[in-house]
Amino acid sequence: MGSVVALAAQVGGAKLAEGLQRLRGKNLSVVVNTGDDFEHLGLAFSPDIDTMLYTLAGMASQKAGWQPEGESYIVQSMLRKLGGPDRPALGDRSLGAPLLRTEALGEGHRLTEITLDFCRRLGIAARVLPMCDERVRTHVLTDEGAVTFHDYFNQLGCEPPVRGFQYAGADAARIPDEVIDALHARDLEAVIIGPANPYHAIRPILEIDGMRDLLRKRGAPVVAVTPIIGGKALMGSAAKMMRELGREPSARAVAGEYRRLIDGFVLDREDVGLAEGIRSLGMQVLVAPTIMRSSEDRVALGEAILGFAARIREARAAAVE
Amino acid sequence: MGSVVALAAQVGGAKLAEGLQRLRGKNLSVVVNTGDDFEHLGLAFSPDIDTMLYTLAGMASQKAGWQPEGESYIVQSMLRKLGGPDRPALGDRSLGAPLLRTEALGEGHRLTEITLDFCRRLGIAARVLPMCDERVRTHVLTDEGAVTFHDYFNQLGCEPPVRGFQYAGADAARIPDEVIDALHARDLEAVIIGPANPYHAIRPILEIDGMRDLLRKRGAPVVAVTPIIGGKALMGSAAKMMRELGREPSARAVAGEYRRLIDGFVLDREDVGLAEGIRSLGMQVLVAPTIMRSSEDRVALGEAILGFAARIREARAAAVE
Repeated sequence: MGSVVALAAQVGGAKLAEGLQRLRGKNLSVVVNTGDDFEHLGLAFSPDIDTMLYTLAGMASQKAGWQPEGESYIVQSMLRKLGGPDRPALGDRSLGAPLLRTEALGEGHRLTEITLDFCRRLGIAARVLPMCDERVRTHVLTDEGAVTFHDYFNQLGCEPPVRGFQYAGADAARIPDEVIDALHARDLEAVIIGPANPYHAIRPILEIDGMRDLLRKRGAPVVAVTPIIGGKALMGSAAKMMRELGREPSARAVAGEYRRLIDGFVLDREDVGLAEGIRSLGMQVLVAPTIMRSSEDRVALGEAILGFAARIREARAAAVE
Repeated sequence: MGSVVALAAQVGGAKLAEGLQRLRGKNLSVVVNTGDDFEHLGLAFSPDIDTMLYTLAGMASQKAGWQPEGESYIVQSMLRKLGGPDRPALGDRSLGAPLLRTEALGEGHRLTEITLDFCRRLGIAARVLPMCDERVRTHVLTDEGAVTFHDYFNQLGCEPPVRGFQYAGADAARIPDEVIDALHARDLEAVIIGPANPYHAIRPILEIDGMRDLLRKRGAPVVAVTPIIGGKALMGSAAKMMRELGREPSARAVAGEYRRLIDGFVLDREDVGLAEGIRSLGMQVLVAPTIMRSSEDRVALGEAILGFAARIREARAAAVE
C-alpha cells in the first residue's frame, strides 16, 4: 500500500479525502487551499482546512458538510445583541479552531504545525497540510474591482459577474517542507485533485511558486475529479463562474483548466458522452459515479480513482519497456 | 433627582448598581474595576465590566450572577477536542463581548468608548465606565511570588496565602474624561463604593493616579457598603484574604481600609454590634439589610444608601451654617 497526496478544498474535496483516508490511513496527505482564508473579529478563519478536519474526524454535518454536526449560533446571538456584525454567521463549534489557530499564529507557530496538531487531537489518521504557511488570498475580479473571495461570497452573495481571479501572495509563498516530503515519497501512488471549484479552490494551490513543476516532476500520475456534472456544480458557484469567464460550464472545460498538468480525469457517469473530447486533450479518462452521498460512495470513488492511477502507472511502465 | 457615581465590581457591586439604576436611570455612572482583566486565547476579557453589563441589562444569571442567564459551553467543548486549555471555562454567551472588545481595541478604540457602545446596544440606562483605558493588573503576592489575580483565581484556586497586592500600571493610568465628568457633575448626590472585595475589586480603582484626591475633593459624600457580613464574604475570598493579611475578617476591618476616604459606611443588620467601633474611625454608619436576594432588595438598599448620603450632606450643610 503506497502513499497518496490529494489536493483538496470544499465539501466535495473533503468527502473524497475521507474515502481515501479509509483506504490509505496515515499514508494519505491532503494539501488544502488557504486562498479563501479570512480574518473576522480578529480571528484567523481557514474554512477549507476546518471543513477537511471536521470531515476526516467524522464530525461534519450530514446536511451542511462545511461545519460540524449540530452547529448552534449562541455566540452569534450575543454578538448581535452587542452590535456585532451579522455576517458571516459564526457557529459555536466552528469558533474553536479559529480561536486556537489565531492564538498559535500569534505565538509564531506555522499554520502547518497548528493544523497537524489539530489532526492529532482529533484522531485524524491522514495528514492535513495547508498549501502554504504564508498569507495567500484569492481575489475575484468584478466590474467594480477586485474583492476577496470571502467578501464575494459573504458580502456580495456571489452575485457580481466574475471577470477573473488573482492569487495575491501566491508567488511569494513557499511550498511547506511537509508538502514537499509528501510529494517526494518513494511510494507515492497518485496525486488526486479533488472535486472542487477549479478557480478559487484548486488553482490557488497550483499557483504556489514551484507547485506545478513539483507535481509534474514526480513520477506518480496526477488525476483530477470533476466538480461539474451535467453542466452543473453539485454545490457552489463553479458553473456560474465558468459561464461568466466565457467557458462552457462542463466537465470538459474543467479538464481543460488542468491540461498539461494531469494525466487522467474522472468524469461522472452522466457525462460519459464527454469522454472522447476529454481524451483529445491528451489525458486518460475514467467514467465513474462521482456523487458521494454515503460513506460507501466515498470509498468506492477513492478505490476507482486509485485503480485508475495504477493503470496509468502500469501503462507508462509498459511504454518505457 | 441628582446624579450618582458608584465604584463597583463583582456580583454584589453589580446588583447594587442595578438597584441604583432603577432609582436614578441615566443619572447613574458606574466606575468598574479592570484590574482583574485578563487575556485568554488572545481575547481581552473584562470580567467585572461584563458582569456589570449583564446585570444592568437584566441578562445576568440568577444563580451565577457573573455570567448571562442560561450559559452554555459549546465552544469550550470544541476547544477541548482541539487540545485547547480547560480553564477558564469559556461560556458561549460570555464570548461575545470579549470578541468584539478585542477587535475594537485592536482598531484603536478606547475601552471606555467600547463599553459605552455595549451599554447603548444592550439598552442600559446607566453609564458603565472602566476605571481607566490603560492596562492595569492586580497582582496577588504569595510566598511563591506575585501572580495576576486571574491566575490566582483560575490556576491556583485562590489557595496560596495572600501576603499583599500590587496594582501594576495603576500609577501610569489616567482617569478617563468620562469618569472625571461624572465626578464633577454639579448635581452629584453621592459616590457609593459597592459591596466588593476591598483588595482586588475596589482598591485598584482607588489606585489610579489622582482618584483618591478627586473623590475627596468633590463635595458629595462617599459611602461604602460592606462586602463582609458576620465575618464572612457573601461570595468570593475577601474574608480569607483579610485573615491572611493579618486583619480580622469583619466589616470593621473593611471600613478601616476606606478610612480617610469615606464619609459613611453601610453595615449589615447582622453586624449592628460593630456600629460604634466603626463610628470611632471617624465616619457615619448606616445599619441596613445588605443581602440582595431580589430586585426589590437591590432597590431598597439603593434607596437606603441614597437617604443616608442625603443625611450626611444635610448634616454637613448644617455644620457649615
